[in-house]
Amino acid sequence: MASVRIREAKEGDCGDMLRLIRELAEFENLSDQVKISEEALRADGFGENPFYHCLVAEILPASGELLGQGIGSKIIKKVAEVALDKGCSQFRLAVLDWNQRAMDLYKALGACDLTEAEGWHFFRFEGEAMRKLAGK
Amino acid sequence: MASVRIREAKEGDCGDMLRLIRELAEFENLSDQVKISEEALRADGFGENPFYHCLVAEILPASGELLGQGIGSKIIKKVAEVALDKGCSQFRLAVLDWNQRAMDLYKALGACDLTEAEGWHFFRFEGEAMRKLAGK
Repeated sequence: MASVRIREAKEGDCGDMLRLIRELAEFENLSDQVKISEEALRADGFGENPFYHCLVAEILPASGELLGQGIGSKIIKKVAEVALDKGCSQFRLAVLDWNQRAMDLYKALGACDLTEAEGWHFFRFEGEAMRKLAGK
Repeated sequence: MASVRIREAKEGDCGDMLRLIRELAEFENLSDQVKISEEALRADGFGENPFYHCLVAEILPASGELLGQGIGSKIIKKVAEVALDKGCSQFRLAVLDWNQRAMDLYKALGACDLTEAEGWHFFRFEGEAMRKLAGK
C-alpha cells in the first residue's frame, strides 16, 4: 500500500507539475494543446493574485503499481475540504466522455454529470479568434 | 439602436447582478440552483483576492427591444480584450445544449464546442457530497 501525503504546491514543484500536465495530455490524446511553460506556471500560480491553486500528492509507493491506491479520491477529498474552508458551495471537474474510470470514480464520490443531466457544453475561445475579437 | 457601454462592475452593482443572475437562471429553468446572496456576491467579488471578475453592460435603449443589438458580442469582445491583457491563452463559456441562439453566436464569433468536438463533460460536487468528502 502506497503512503500518500497531500499538500499545497510550492513554486519549486512547477517543473514536476508541467511534466504531469504533459503526461495527462498524452493520456487524453491532446498533447498539442499543452502550450504552457514552466515559467508561466510559476508566474500564474505564485504571484500576488494567483490564477490557479494546486495540490500535490507525494507518494511513497510500496510497489510499482500506483493506480487503484485511492490517490484520486484523496485529492478530491482534499479539494472538497479546501473548497468548504474557502466558502465555496460547489466545485467542478472536466472529464472526457471516454474516460470511464474517471467518470465512475467521480460519480461514486457523489458528483453529478451536468452535461448529461442538464446539457451543459464547454465553448472555448482561443488564439486567432481571441485576437480578432479584441481587435489585436 | 441602443447605446452600450461595457465597464468593470463595482460593488454597488451587486444588487443588479443578483437580479440578472436570477433572470438568467429562470430562462435556463434552473432557478432552484441560485443560492447566492447579494452579501456573498459583494464578499466574493470585491475583497482582497476576488473569486470572480465581472463586466457590466450599461444600456441606453432607443427602443423597447434589447435583443439583437449586439450586446452579447460586445461583452464577449471585451472579455477577449481583458483576457489577452491578463496573459490568458483562452477563455471558456458554458452553454445549455438547447440554447441554440447562444451556441450560434459563440460559434459565429470563433468558439469551439469542446463537448461536441472532444467529449468534455462537466462534473459538479456540491452540498452533502462535498461535506461527506471533507468529513464535515
